[in-house]
Amino acid sequence: MTVRVGVIGAGMIGADHIRRLSSALTGAVVVAVADADAERARRQAFELPGARACPSGEELIASDDVDAVLIASPGPTHEDYVLASIAAGKHVFCEKPLAPTQAGCERMLTAEMSCGRRLVQVGYMRRYDAAYRALKSVVDGGTIGVPTMIHAAHRNPSVPGSYTAEMAITDTAVHDIDVTRWLLGEEIVATRVLKPRRNSRAAGHLADPLVLLLETESGVLADVEINVSAGYGYDIRGEVVGEKGTAELGDLSLVVVRADGQQRTAVPAGWLERFSGAYDLELSEWISSVAIGAATGPSTWDGYAISAVSDAAIAAVSNGERVVVSLPEQPAFYAMSVAST
Amino acid sequence: MTVRVGVIGAGMIGADHIRRLSSALTGAVVVAVADADAERARRQAFELPGARACPSGEELIASDDVDAVLIASPGPTHEDYVLASIAAGKHVFCEKPLAPTQAGCERMLTAEMSCGRRLVQVGYMRRYDAAYRALKSVVDGGTIGVPTMIHAAHRNPSVPGSYTAEMAITDTAVHDIDVTRWLLGEEIVATRVLKPRRNSRAAGHLADPLVLLLETESGVLADVEINVSAGYGYDIRGEVVGEKGTAELGDLSLVVVRADGQQRTAVPAGWLERFSGAYDLELSEWISSVAIGAATGPSTWDGYAISAVSDAAIAAVSNGERVVVSLPEQPAFYAMSVAST
Amino acid sequence: MTVRVGVIGAGMIGADHIRRLSSALTGAVVVAVADADAERARRQAFELPGARACPSGEELIASDDVDAVLIASPGPTHEDYVLASIAAGKHVFCEKPLAPTQAGCERMLTAEMSCGRRLVQVGYMRRYDAAYRALKSVVDGGTIGVPTMIHAAHRNPSVPGSYTAEMAITDTAVHDIDVTRWLLGEEIVATRVLKPRRNSRAAGHLADPLVLLLETESGVLADVEINVSAGYGYDIRGEVVGEKGTAELGDLSLVVVRADGQQRTAVPAGWLERFSGAYDLELSEWISSVAIGAATGPSTWDGYAISAVSDAAIAAVSNGERVVVSLPEQPAFYAMSVAST
Amino acid sequence: MTVRVGVIGAGMIGADHIRRLSSALTGAVVVAVADADAERARRQAFELPGARACPSGEELIASDDVDAVLIASPGPTHEDYVLASIAAGKHVFCEKPLAPTQAGCERMLTAEMSCGRRLVQVGYMRRYDAAYRALKSVVDGGTIGVPTMIHAAHRNPSVPGSYTAEMAITDTAVHDIDVTRWLLGEEIVATRVLKPRRNSRAAGHLADPLVLLLETESGVLADVEINVSAGYGYDIRGEVVGEKGTAELGDLSLVVVRADGQQRTAVPAGWLERFSGAYDLELSEWISSVAIGAATGPSTWDGYAISAVSDAAIAAVSNGERVVVSLPEQPAFYAMSVAST
Repeated sequence: MTVRVGVIGAGMIGADHIRRLSSALTGAVVVAVADADAERARRQAFELPGARACPSGEELIASDDVDAVLIASPGPTHEDYVLASIAAGKHVFCEKPLAPTQAGCERMLTAEMSCGRRLVQVGYMRRYDAAYRALKSVVDGGTIGVPTMIHAAHRNPSVPGSYTAEMAITDTAVHDIDVTRWLLGEEIVATRVLKPRRNSRAAGHLADPLVLLLETESGVLADVEINVSAGYGYDIRGEVVGEKGTAELGDLSLVVVRADGQQRTAVPAGWLERFSGAYDLELSEWISSVAIGAATGPSTWDGYAISAVSDAAIAAVSNGERVVVSLPEQPAFYAMSVAST
Repeated sequence: MTVRVGVIGAGMIGADHIRRLSSALTGAVVVAVADADAERARRQAFELPGARACPSGEELIASDDVDAVLIASPGPTHEDYVLASIAAGKHVFCEKPLAPTQAGCERMLTAEMSCGRRLVQVGYMRRYDAAYRALKSVVDGGTIGVPTMIHAAHRNPSVPGSYTAEMAITDTAVHDIDVTRWLLGEEIVATRVLKPRRNSRAAGHLADPLVLLLETESGVLADVEINVSAGYGYDIRGEVVGEKGTAELGDLSLVVVRADGQQRTAVPAGWLERFSGAYDLELSEWISSVAIGAATGPSTWDGYAISAVSDAAIAAVSNGERVVVSLPEQPAFYAMSVAST
Repeated sequence: MTVRVGVIGAGMIGADHIRRLSSALTGAVVVAVADADAERARRQAFELPGARACPSGEELIASDDVDAVLIASPGPTHEDYVLASIAAGKHVFCEKPLAPTQAGCERMLTAEMSCGRRLVQVGYMRRYDAAYRALKSVVDGGTIGVPTMIHAAHRNPSVPGSYTAEMAITDTAVHDIDVTRWLLGEEIVATRVLKPRRNSRAAGHLADPLVLLLETESGVLADVEINVSAGYGYDIRGEVVGEKGTAELGDLSLVVVRADGQQRTAVPAGWLERFSGAYDLELSEWISSVAIGAATGPSTWDGYAISAVSDAAIAAVSNGERVVVSLPEQPAFYAMSVAST
Repeated sequence: MTVRVGVIGAGMIGADHIRRLSSALTGAVVVAVADADAERARRQAFELPGARACPSGEELIASDDVDAVLIASPGPTHEDYVLASIAAGKHVFCEKPLAPTQAGCERMLTAEMSCGRRLVQVGYMRRYDAAYRALKSVVDGGTIGVPTMIHAAHRNPSVPGSYTAEMAITDTAVHDIDVTRWLLGEEIVATRVLKPRRNSRAAGHLADPLVLLLETESGVLADVEINVSAGYGYDIRGEVVGEKGTAELGDLSLVVVRADGQQRTAVPAGWLERFSGAYDLELSEWISSVAIGAATGPSTWDGYAISAVSDAAIAAVSNGERVVVSLPEQPAFYAMSVAST
């Protein structure tokens, strides 16, 4: 079965997903594109044989020839589109954040549970990266014993001027928030944000770097360096410390060069270079799960829990104090979700 | 355009290519399968919507609905299928070896040149591996200066009892023979084969390991360890030494584990784990090249030249002496081939 | 000139220093040994040609044939011995901690300044480790830009039952407290101690691991994992993150082994294996400095400042809150000390 | 006991050894210096308290206050000094080569055996390098199984104009010739020398690089890259391949730097940076062995056997053919020597 996908939002990430679905992956075809900028939707649809532009996301979702919906529009629009997709009984892939507010996420939880089956997958793509999967496999395998700490770093060479203080949490740290939950299979209960010496090369008045501290239910402490003015490259690091060993992401260097008195390997230039394989696999597994009618990836609950942690972290930025994450009991409906994929 | 592919040979590698074309890659569909074992062809075709079993490779090649042919049958059958494909004006992907004899390769060269355009791609898949491509990119970029030496090793954990002495050259060393030509953009002119102390764990009376020495036109010396009883894993290593630096394949370890007094990374268990990405890219680029009607990968000339080197290496096994490779001038028709991809 | 050294304290570290001075290093001779256990002093002296046991540390310090004093007795006895050495105008090497209390350290500061010249070196031996020196050299060289963060870990495989909660700071973290000051050339102004999930393998009711957070004058934030039940080996890690790059301690693996599907290097078993070279160099440079009459290594001020940070960290263990380090202006007398060696 | 050493030859390596014995190591004192350049001997002796210049090496050897002799004069003078030392019953450390000819080495063998005990140690200092010792320890421990191959490389950034073709064997490859024998505990029986493409940056008309092939008694094949115009640094590499695993020298990088899109470690600039620790340990162990009257390091037999291999390798340079090493049965007197240290 070929899954007929409608894509809402044809900006950078949306266009990239369209390219992925139509010319890199098998099993899906893009049949409809909607965008607030109608001209942009038209241009994208024009280049795809068999695809049409839709005047609105709502109409796209309602279309009979759309089996599944991919949402890559701005965050504040996600809630309406996800709710409409659930109402239509259609599988939906929603880019992060699921919604900008916890309240929005809660409405989606309610709707999805009412509908009786999982339809939503959220775009936390690190769970599809080969290195993170190998890391989780080692942790799950017991070689390092019960985890007690995580050390992580998210380093971007730089960010555009439009990057805001909140984005350090909602766009950057969000990946390590998800990964911490996923690697450990438990929720985050409290957070702190500390401000090291400011990088004088940071854009505008951005407080950068930050150190995000996360505490999980069992007491695991994760420290995450958020450093978006790192200058030298895109560098993602992660180490899980267990009771009898540790496991950390490897270096992934294709070639080692010796020249000019040095031994050198390359650091990735950006996230596309580092994670393009993960994006491919993410959509590929989504399409497969849609084809068999069973959502498997990061769930609405994941989006909701991450939203709760993000809100706490944003509150924690102001003063360095510990902020408790407010999260209800996880519904049995989503029981397996935190450890999925 | 979706390329309609007919596959001849549905054994291990053939079945793997069928899976790749039909469920991993985009742009192609398998429409016909032929195999000396008709039942095997039927089974494969049965599982593919829209595909049929063909009673013979010849009939498959002649079929109107077959745009391009993939040959994964035993080596001795390659020549006839390739010649028939060329005669039919169809693009053909032929697994290595192109043909067991230089004479067979020569007949294909003649046929392809007569036809006036390149139609044949041979399955030297290392040229599609990300690490080898990065290595070539460093060499071509000039960082290490003009190459003077290559050190390489091909290590298999073990081989089945059916593995013969000749296969050390034609199945194993063949990859480094191709890679040496491709990395340096020149032909191999002479070879030696030395026999180190025999591994007592080697299967049967196999002389293993071997050290293959290759000399290129400009005098570059490559030493290649052929070690198919290495025991510990599948380990492919390569270093190009230049006049002012060196470049070597990196370690590609996804995760570093520290436990039990050791820091550890995993060695791949086999070629599928190490090179599955290269196989994907190889077929993907082949399909793209077929779609635009232009062969780009390893050519008939490459198959021919590698056959010439293999013949010399097999002769060289007996006594450790230097054997000159007999190779005519490369036809202008294939001018760019040695450096392609 | 051969420096005649008197050693006070002939326990494990004292005996090791005696061995070092008498049979590994040149330029010094041990002429006297004192220990609260008179028999132990006698045994040590007996094995050294030309050495005698002294009935007390005080008498040893007063002896005319003792040019310089090495103190390796228990911490609470350090103050008296150091003050007596200063009063006698003799160079003195004092193992850490300089004194268990800040008040004790202050009395030494006053005495040394009154005497008008530096006579005291404290045993912070990491400043003599080749890897830490290389790290400092990179930081000082500007390659990574102005430092903003430090990530460090101190992992012991295990500790004896006698190890107490305070020792996590005064014996273990003390090294990273010193190294942070020394690498950055500035003082620590505040600290936090966080408690990750307790390692169930930790001895007794020890809270282990801990994460020590240090803030320096310029705002650099150091996070230090204190993990004395790490199980797998003795692992010391440190990374300085700067405004445009990072530098971290290398792996120092003598040999890489590939076997059983793995690539492996050894993790040191303990501090002697990791830092024996640093201990040698520490005493060697001390002897050289004594021979020319000029103290160069970690000073009384370093011991005092580290004591102040340790006191704050011990206070911080209870509740995770930020504790300010109380430290007066550094006297000009010790101006260069923080960055020395 | 302090060993009183007389040094013959006060050039670069001789002066370095004098510095080592007098100001770095314990247990020895330099009491006499001789050099063909009397003024140079005087200058060296003048700077050492208690040392005198001797008018000749012979007189130095005969002096009552000289317990042991260190020979660092030009190779052709070694034989006379070693024979005189043996005749005087004095321990002697002789820099490599033991003698320029096999005949000279044989006369030393005869003299030492007549004298009835080992007195001679030859300066093959790699056996004292921590990394090589760790490599030998892994090989001896059986982890990798019985060795079948060695891959090695000796790379100098460049050599002075005075460097000759023969020195590629006698000064450079000599270390790997010794290490191969020592690692495997057996002799080399044949050799080949191959000439890769010449490095256009090589000094004068030097044929550089070379590949030296060595075959041992049990059939182990070692390939050694001799590359003295490597440009990028001083890089010594070695891997032993066994029947079930491999072991190779580690990277020894003190610090890893990430900057400018790269991860970088330093390559040593020269042999002093790489092997200074080995030189220290070599002399230190020699002094200890002299103090107890028992030679332990590389023996006259080692010097002799290496001389035989070097002669064969020099003969092999001309044409690439296999040259058999002519070596008599090893006398029982030297039975343990090949595996010593």
